[in-house]
Amino acid sequence: MSGSKLRGVLSPVLTPFNADYSVSETRFLKHCKSLLEQNVGLAVFGTNSEANSLSVEEKIRLLDLLIDAGVPGDRLMPGTGCCALTDSIALTRHAVQRGCAGVLMLPPFYYKGVSDEGLFRNYAAIIDAVADERLRIYLYHIPPVSQVGISLALIERLLKAYPGTIAGVKDSSGDWSNTKAMLDTFQPEGFDVFAGSETFLLQTLRNGGAGCITATGNVNPAAISQLYATWQQDDADAQQAQLDAVRKAFQAHPMIAAMKHAIAWQSGDESWKTMRPPLQELSQEQAGKLESDLSALSFKIRNAAALSGL
Amino acid sequence: MSGSKLRGVLSPVLTPFNADYSVSETRFLKHCKSLLEQNVGLAVFGTNSEANSLSVEEKIRLLDLLIDAGVPGDRLMPGTGCCALTDSIALTRHAVQRGCAGVLMLPPFYYKGVSDEGLFRNYAAIIDAVADERLRIYLYHIPPVSQVGISLALIERLLKAYPGTIAGVKDSSGDWSNTKAMLDTFQPEGFDVFAGSETFLLQTLRNGGAGCITATGNVNPAAISQLYATWQQDDADAQQAQLDAVRKAFQAHPMIAAMKHAIAWQSGDESWKTMRPPLQELSQEQAGKLESDLSALSFKIRNAAALSGL
Repeated sequence: MSGSKLRGVLSPVLTPFNADYSVSETRFLKHCKSLLEQNVGLAVFGTNSEANSLSVEEKIRLLDLLIDAGVPGDRLMPGTGCCALTDSIALTRHAVQRGCAGVLMLPPFYYKGVSDEGLFRNYAAIIDAVADERLRIYLYHIPPVSQVGISLALIERLLKAYPGTIAGVKDSSGDWSNTKAMLDTFQPEGFDVFAGSETFLLQTLRNGGAGCITATGNVNPAAISQLYATWQQDDADAQQAQLDAVRKAFQAHPMIAAMKHAIAWQSGDESWKTMRPPLQELSQEQAGKLESDLSALSFKIRNAAALSGL
Repeated sequence: MSGSKLRGVLSPVLTPFNADYSVSETRFLKHCKSLLEQNVGLAVFGTNSEANSLSVEEKIRLLDLLIDAGVPGDRLMPGTGCCALTDSIALTRHAVQRGCAGVLMLPPFYYKGVSDEGLFRNYAAIIDAVADERLRIYLYHIPPVSQVGISLALIERLLKAYPGTIAGVKDSSGDWSNTKAMLDTFQPEGFDVFAGSETFLLQTLRNGGAGCITATGNVNPAAISQLYATWQQDDADAQQAQLDAVRKAFQAHPMIAAMKHAIAWQSGDESWKTMRPPLQELSQEQAGKLESDLSALSFKIRNAAALSGL
């Protein structure tokens, strides 16, 4: 296993559902292939994948679907951190055994105010139980949603206890000073820091970081991966500004519903709008604003027709 | 199925673990039997059960263990609300099929700021999928931990859509004015309001409520169920004050660890201290204070020796 192919741009892949809330495997596979063709890696089962609305069994089935369809493991960084230690172990073990280059791991997020000692024990118990030297863990820091975060002190302790296995972090704190501290402290040791969105992509790369793992990668993959490939060129700031404008149109709404709406709209496949409860689709008013904002930017999802499951 | 046996005092049953973090089924069964003998019903898989650190598979196995051992379904109110809709359906279906009189259901708690519409769809999808007229759902409102709550408007809508199935609520908001509003608005319709701890037991009963579902029921079951049985007697306020004093000693610490410590201490079985990550046992200092506070109250866990797994 080489960590190198996981650098760059990855996306928490949207999970399409059928009307009865079951996963639409056909649309999922099409979407994954489209992202790979646009140089975006697959951080399947992330927050924007509605992954915490999926059972471990459903995630294992989807992972198998991708790998059996020939998706290379070295482009896969599935989310495997669950509330229950036993779920995290089962899912992580499966991901490693199926050849995934890394896993993105939330801390257990039900109990609040837990100690770094308790979180350390959680990660240690998973690593010890999986007991596979191929395991590469990317820690997932997203306190606005999980309410349980990954402190710098915890990263330091984990890196010391499990060098090689603790491979990096996705920082979705939205706080650049935290990302910068991670970059300054840990990136020089080969610990890969990913920005939690393309908003900080250029800044992250200029500070030696590994790339970004971003929701918007689902709808704007080529342009984001283009900035990653050409960030040292003169037009990098202009590219970043263009990415920001597109993101702003989506971010004005609940992101997952907005991205699904855009795909439904541009692919002509209404099913793409379906959200599994407790999340819900955009209101008509939100949808109208999104469509008009994207039109004003002349924004098109590339190869949108290929995402239709019809 | 009759809801009546679920009135009174129930406890989110502590889950004992072995040193390798696997569930100690022997200790679990002993503890459940001891609670039943003291007139406390089994709200297994609650917050204080570390239930969100258990997989659905583990919960199904424990539920089967109890029922196969002869625990009556009409004393069982397992927690079955998970993040993933599919998990909630699977666990709820199993509980109903095995004869549990009711289930206590958290809202999906990963995604924050979700709408009542989204939460309604979640409960509706579970009820429609389980499709069993024996199903009785007690809604679990615990915003300090889950961060996602059950509003009065949501209860009203669910009661209207699923009368008979929506059976009651556990209010762990810690906010008496909220419990009072639930009692005033919904209890007259036969919707059973349970206080989230014995702190509000007497007040809840005086306002027509159904009882309480309380962590401390794990360690002080007989005294709490005694107040439920005799709340109209002259000494009720004195009984409540005594319960409050005991609770205060536990509540000075992380509750689950404190209760497990007390059982380990008084049963002589150190294994009871084990917590599954991300939670952890009391520090030596906390343990010393708890033991001295409980000694000052002359507090003893009744039949503690029977809880030893040694």
